[in-house]
Amino acid sequence: MTPNPSFVLNKINDVSFVDRPIPTITDPHYVKIKVRKTGICGSDVHYYTHGSIGHFVVTEPMVLGHESAGEIVEVGAAVKTLKVGDRVAMEPGIPSRYSDEYKSGHYNLCPHMAFAATPPYHGTLTRYYLLPEDFCVKLPENVSLEEGALAEPLSVGVHVSRLAKISPGDVVVVFGAGPVGLLIASCALAFGSTKVISVDILPHKLEMAKSELGIPYTFQPVKGDSYKESAQKIWDILGGVKPNIAIDASGAEASINTAIHVLKEGGMFVQAGMGADEVTFPIAEFCSKELQASGCFRYGYGDYKLAVEFIASGKVPVKKLITHRFKFTEAEDAFKTVMAGKAVKVIIDGPEDE
Amino acid sequence: MTPNPSFVLNKINDVSFVDRPIPTITDPHYVKIKVRKTGICGSDVHYYTHGSIGHFVVTEPMVLGHESAGEIVEVGAAVKTLKVGDRVAMEPGIPSRYSDEYKSGHYNLCPHMAFAATPPYHGTLTRYYLLPEDFCVKLPENVSLEEGALAEPLSVGVHVSRLAKISPGDVVVVFGAGPVGLLIASCALAFGSTKVISVDILPHKLEMAKSELGIPYTFQPVKGDSYKESAQKIWDILGGVKPNIAIDASGAEASINTAIHVLKEGGMFVQAGMGADEVTFPIAEFCSKELQASGCFRYGYGDYKLAVEFIASGKVPVKKLITHRFKFTEAEDAFKTVMAGKAVKVIIDGPEDE
Amino acid sequence: MTPNPSFVLNKINDVSFVDRPIPTITDPHYVKIKVRKTGICGSDVHYYTHGSIGHFVVTEPMVLGHESAGEIVEVGAAVKTLKVGDRVAMEPGIPSRYSDEYKSGHYNLCPHMAFAATPPYHGTLTRYYLLPEDFCVKLPENVSLEEGALAEPLSVGVHVSRLAKISPGDVVVVFGAGPVGLLIASCALAFGSTKVISVDILPHKLEMAKSELGIPYTFQPVKGDSYKESAQKIWDILGGVKPNIAIDASGAEASINTAIHVLKEGGMFVQAGMGADEVTFPIAEFCSKELQASGCFRYGYGDYKLAVEFIASGKVPVKKLITHRFKFTEAEDAFKTVMAGKAVKVIIDGPEDE
Amino acid sequence: MTPNPSFVLNKINDVSFVDRPIPTITDPHYVKIKVRKTGICGSDVHYYTHGSIGHFVVTEPMVLGHESAGEIVEVGAAVKTLKVGDRVAMEPGIPSRYSDEYKSGHYNLCPHMAFAATPPYHGTLTRYYLLPEDFCVKLPENVSLEEGALAEPLSVGVHVSRLAKISPGDVVVVFGAGPVGLLIASCALAFGSTKVISVDILPHKLEMAKSELGIPYTFQPVKGDSYKESAQKIWDILGGVKPNIAIDASGAEASINTAIHVLKEGGMFVQAGMGADEVTFPIAEFCSKELQASGCFRYGYGDYKLAVEFIASGKVPVKKLITHRFKFTEAEDAFKTVMAGKAVKVIIDGPEDE
Repeated sequence: MTPNPSFVLNKINDVSFVDRPIPTITDPHYVKIKVRKTGICGSDVHYYTHGSIGHFVVTEPMVLGHESAGEIVEVGAAVKTLKVGDRVAMEPGIPSRYSDEYKSGHYNLCPHMAFAATPPYHGTLTRYYLLPEDFCVKLPENVSLEEGALAEPLSVGVHVSRLAKISPGDVVVVFGAGPVGLLIASCALAFGSTKVISVDILPHKLEMAKSELGIPYTFQPVKGDSYKESAQKIWDILGGVKPNIAIDASGAEASINTAIHVLKEGGMFVQAGMGADEVTFPIAEFCSKELQASGCFRYGYGDYKLAVEFIASGKVPVKKLITHRFKFTEAEDAFKTVMAGKAVKVIIDGPEDE
Repeated sequence: MTPNPSFVLNKINDVSFVDRPIPTITDPHYVKIKVRKTGICGSDVHYYTHGSIGHFVVTEPMVLGHESAGEIVEVGAAVKTLKVGDRVAMEPGIPSRYSDEYKSGHYNLCPHMAFAATPPYHGTLTRYYLLPEDFCVKLPENVSLEEGALAEPLSVGVHVSRLAKISPGDVVVVFGAGPVGLLIASCALAFGSTKVISVDILPHKLEMAKSELGIPYTFQPVKGDSYKESAQKIWDILGGVKPNIAIDASGAEASINTAIHVLKEGGMFVQAGMGADEVTFPIAEFCSKELQASGCFRYGYGDYKLAVEFIASGKVPVKKLITHRFKFTEAEDAFKTVMAGKAVKVIIDGPEDE
Repeated sequence: MTPNPSFVLNKINDVSFVDRPIPTITDPHYVKIKVRKTGICGSDVHYYTHGSIGHFVVTEPMVLGHESAGEIVEVGAAVKTLKVGDRVAMEPGIPSRYSDEYKSGHYNLCPHMAFAATPPYHGTLTRYYLLPEDFCVKLPENVSLEEGALAEPLSVGVHVSRLAKISPGDVVVVFGAGPVGLLIASCALAFGSTKVISVDILPHKLEMAKSELGIPYTFQPVKGDSYKESAQKIWDILGGVKPNIAIDASGAEASINTAIHVLKEGGMFVQAGMGADEVTFPIAEFCSKELQASGCFRYGYGDYKLAVEFIASGKVPVKKLITHRFKFTEAEDAFKTVMAGKAVKVIIDGPEDE
Repeated sequence: MTPNPSFVLNKINDVSFVDRPIPTITDPHYVKIKVRKTGICGSDVHYYTHGSIGHFVVTEPMVLGHESAGEIVEVGAAVKTLKVGDRVAMEPGIPSRYSDEYKSGHYNLCPHMAFAATPPYHGTLTRYYLLPEDFCVKLPENVSLEEGALAEPLSVGVHVSRLAKISPGDVVVVFGAGPVGLLIASCALAFGSTKVISVDILPHKLEMAKSELGIPYTFQPVKGDSYKESAQKIWDILGGVKPNIAIDASGAEASINTAIHVLKEGGMFVQAGMGADEVTFPIAEFCSKELQASGCFRYGYGDYKLAVEFIASGKVPVKKLITHRFKFTEAEDAFKTVMAGKAVKVIIDGPEDE
């Protein structure tokens, strides 16, 4: 292979392998990482097939990938906590150190964020990648590089759980049992809830929730049921208890509406999944039950670190989500597999050493 | 007049004066109050003209009114903090003392709430009314009974401000400049914000916000503007600063959408006004800015007391909202005046003494 | 045995079995419970040997005991959630339903609290005991009455954990490994922390923490070490990580001081154990690290219920704490055993049926 | 005068005017400021007379001063929000942009903080001083440079108020009526409390609190009174109401103990004043009332900005605290005046232009 092979999206549905310049450390707080494992996320696929997400438009060829782990091959002069050879989970979004958002503890909202595989920033499906020291989380010995790559979607689950303030005694319903929904449900258990229910229209996803991740309750909505009917069925499954936390990881209008109806008075709704720009929303119900709600955008301070801890302690068995593995040279096949809708999580290995 | 004259809604658009039995104290924690002043609220009018609000339906004749103040004429055996002759603001909703909601500090959400002029409970447009001691707030000498009656809508403003956690430094936009919207904007100032902007489509309401209540900024949306255009205009009026708190007291879809667009990243939206059951909601914007939101239902622990303090300290000049006054015997005219849409706040005096 | 045998503290170190009148339900929200299991708490022993705690002084003979579980034998007319035969954990302190503290969600601080075995209120070491329905928590089938009795001290652990806001990622140090300290440490795990360290001067208590409750780290302070030296040793044991939460369940000045020194900047200290009235406190360290602190008094809304859930789910293996069991007729021996300082938790069975 | 005259503490009680090199902008985010006004703080005086504070020891000559405002005379290449000629309040402590504390929104706790006039960092009593753009707050036209200098101690008041979560309805007692105590009490009003009481042993300070700052209540403890007696007197002055927030700005053991006794159950104590390293603390009272507490260290995100807003809006009349003014060449006299204990706030003008 070439010195720095990269998997590049040229334009919609047009990808190729390109040898890009090996990046050089100029900021002394940075490290150079040899990327080892990369998961494919829905947003990667969306750029691949649509060329844009919201106002982010791919106008120049862009390296894909942002769920990665790798090995440190070089460290900047000011780096103190990492050394060559360390294996790290790679947090893919670097905010400005001077923005109000960063300064106030909410760097995920920084308007100057440079996020991997979000135009105009290149992604991590490349051999060498630079990151600041503090956006790498060193992997404990018992965490594999593959698991380290999954720290990215797991960080979303952690961030959602923190926004939802999940705590023991909470009853949590999660709409959507794709990779993010499953990880959120698993995080809800790790945050101490024992009553967690996964909701999805596809039974095999619920089966994975139950058997692989140990989510205690699942529910498959019945076509044609009203939101109130679905809510009643969820209460019944939970033994007559109403959830006080509802999280939507589907982006579907039906899920959001059922969530608002199923919640207990004073409960908390978190929107974790991006879907349509607009939905019809039951504002009167939201108001009369005095519900709380929160949007959720990526992840912030401490989330990546906790994600790695959850993997290390076995609290969230991320490995169970991996259904397919591909070589770097098969990256296109890997994406096609995700597009076909049969995979849960696909991991791309490499680039292999020269 | 009769011993206990009451203004009763028999059915839609059918009211009459009825002499109802004088109520008797049976619970030793209760007091008997001679009602002196009552404000008319939009919900009273809605029952009058529609016979129902949501699932609350007037099936039996019901005394109207729930914004009242009066004088204690009798106290139960266990009453310790009030005595005959005390003037009090009357909190009109009594929850169960045993519900989880009451016990956990959120009595406004109690499912067993007995709320004045909400079927099947009679309202306060009557001479004698019973309340538990702790749902009466004694009026300081410098607070009139008329102002005491307005503690009810002001409590909504207090509750909203607490849910929104308004604090100095916050920039607050309030949509709707009806009585509740104006009181919320005024509360925002009392909670320490100096940048408060009232938004309404009617210029005379904005004029009242500015000249009577001292709201520093106002904005009248231009017909045909997009939500983003309205948001930009609000930012401009505020000198380029984005609100971090937005409160809707209009219930209008346009307001709610503009609110979400006008908010700063990480900001807080509170829905205070009941409008349509459903609205089209910009969920992607809500999500990508990681906004917070809260419904708001009536008022809870400590809100009524703080409302009276705000009146006593002059922080919220409730009196400025009163545009019309009627005798008890003119109650029907009072309601008609509200229905005509020209009044801000209408006060009914009495019932006059026999 | 007599109809309603009770174990009564007459005065300091003077106890006897007395047949007291069987209580009668007068309030329709109450149930009558046949007490089945009672744990002995340090406060019971303190009354026994000192006749008072703070300003609570035993001036009349008082039934001891407040950690109990039993079976419902009669229900009041308004009771809806319990029936005769149900097994329940008995929450022993009943607040006023009208106090501001109850109304605002902090009933543990109610000044009118009637708490079992706190003068002038009788305790639960008796056959029949009355409680309001909502201060009983029904035991799931897999929770024994013995475990149900231990919901009382476990509720303290739950309350502390909530005050400390323990969440995954937190590093928690608990000073004191008596029953309450052990249950707090176990709760810290249940709240999602994986780095919990128990500190005690007695190695056999630390051994129980480790082997029976699975507390991952323990530390026995070395006599003569300064607070800073002890703090450094704790950091070393934790692999160089500083706790962000410290809880004192010992009441010892040395523990409190070590806690303040061991905490990370911005960390949280909770005082859970009652000890001396006053301690020398490192206020400058508290200030310059901008620490947070909270007192902790008993338990409040939802704590008892979560305690029972923790037992049912196996998250807190309360049973492991029980080292001794006695018959009701041996109650005096049971207390003597606790006084001898060798027991962890002593359970009194009965009173046996007539 | 020389090009860059500076007022230097050589060692204990040994000061001199030194011409120091004019600093050069090397970081493009920095601005160069001509210092115009500087207030003297107790910590400046403490270094002057003791040569150290805690573990910060003056071992090399150090420029004094850290409460300053000035005019921008040069801006770095990346500076966007400031221009030459702007008048700014100068926040004197610059944290590392990479520390966890900065990243999580608590930069005041950053261990790498470079704070003016705290060894080994020079202070602001010099002509030219460099600061990053985002640690300057532009002064509105109606705020004088003198007032801008007082944004520094006022930021402490803002930070304390935020830690104490002061809000309308709160009853606040502030111990100590020196400059910081007075500014805290004034902030408590700005945060919406109407019941604020200042406590001090010196009647002329209380007089200033009342007449100059409009603090509604004051209390001078009586020598020989117990803490409980002092608490009772404070309750009496407040009309039988117990404070729910107590702030100590005195550092005196008597104040701290009275604070804990005077607080309502569940109340909040903030330690704002540095005093003795250790105090005797009523831990049992703290525990049984389930009080909350917080240390307070300097100020953090947004505090300086809000301080300037409070000055601009007239909410905190900082000017009223200024009792003495000196020329830069009289800096030694200025310090002597503070040491003599008669001044409230002393302002040093200049250095005058060459």
